[in-house]
Amino acid sequence: MFAAPVNRLISEFARLPGIGQRTAQRLTFHVLSVSDEEALDLAAAIREVKETVGQCEICFNLATEATCRICQDERRETATLCVVEQPSDVIPIERSGEFHGRYHVLGGALSPIDGVDPEHLHVTELLDRATGNGIREVVIATNATTTGEATALYLADAVRERAPDVAVTRLASGLPVGADLEYADEITLGKALRGRHAL
Amino acid sequence: MFAAPVNRLISEFARLPGIGQRTAQRLTFHVLSVSDEEALDLAAAIREVKETVGQCEICFNLATEATCRICQDERRETATLCVVEQPSDVIPIERSGEFHGRYHVLGGALSPIDGVDPEHLHVTELLDRATGNGIREVVIATNATTTGEATALYLADAVRERAPDVAVTRLASGLPVGADLEYADEITLGKALRGRHAL
Repeated sequence: MFAAPVNRLISEFARLPGIGQRTAQRLTFHVLSVSDEEALDLAAAIREVKETVGQCEICFNLATEATCRICQDERRETATLCVVEQPSDVIPIERSGEFHGRYHVLGGALSPIDGVDPEHLHVTELLDRATGNGIREVVIATNATTTGEATALYLADAVRERAPDVAVTRLASGLPVGADLEYADEITLGKALRGRHAL
Repeated sequence: MFAAPVNRLISEFARLPGIGQRTAQRLTFHVLSVSDEEALDLAAAIREVKETVGQCEICFNLATEATCRICQDERRETATLCVVEQPSDVIPIERSGEFHGRYHVLGGALSPIDGVDPEHLHVTELLDRATGNGIREVVIATNATTTGEATALYLADAVRERAPDVAVTRLASGLPVGADLEYADEITLGKALRGRHAL
């Protein structure tokens, strides 16, 4: 029904996560309706990000140079490593202002059913970093999902085996701040109870 | 918190309609995670659509040549014009399979409050087309919204004045197919009652 270039842009938009056929169509008509400049700015930003942004060779976070800004930052603590699944997980932790160490981005979570085994993640690199680099604690900040929890347990064992003197910790589970007890699910509430602490 | 090119792509995505800051961030991380090829395909599709797709010089629908595929199609009826607000409105009408004439895309709806007056829409061109081109009917298919209805009334008057022999019709208002009466709003139901027809 559309000209070929219009169909092509619709399918390209529809490949993005969470963008269905209808939204892709709406975005395409938007691109058609705006100025050339505005539309080409988006195209240029996509090219630029792919050309200039790569992986930090130490922690696998996003980086525009060989290493990322956090690994380059001399003021960060060097004794603590925070292990996350994806580069996007670094942001909320940085925003919390509670972590001052360095990161290690795994590149995903273990999920044998999807064919994601330890060799597909940056596990070897984590174990190498955790050994004899003055690391005293590895905070495992994988998601609180089934695969994230399984990954945390696997990493805890692996780190303890390779570097028995390094403390392995996990983010606390419990009620999110602002949550009503009435609406909390029983698994979260169970974890909040088991993790209760003195006031 | 991000490298400049990452921030730039997030802001470009966030300019798209219905894409908030969080979604823009998610899309950006998606673009970073996919192959260069997949990401650059999107950038190329945006460039291509802006370079190759323009407006039909007869009906103002999208066109990759001077005129659109519908205006070029000799098999379409030439006595009926369907007036729509946007190029995207042509698609659902084509899909219905009930219209075999040609289109006229206004480029919007009248909305004095937003500064959209008749001279900002392709109204003059519509009146020119409706006069002495063998046109017998103008179907006004603007949206069933306040601005769409106001535009329909304005166009009906204007066409009748310039081309008194041309029939001016409007899409029927009523219950959408599959709708429960129980959930129909009273304005739609009122229109459906006023528009009732013999069985």
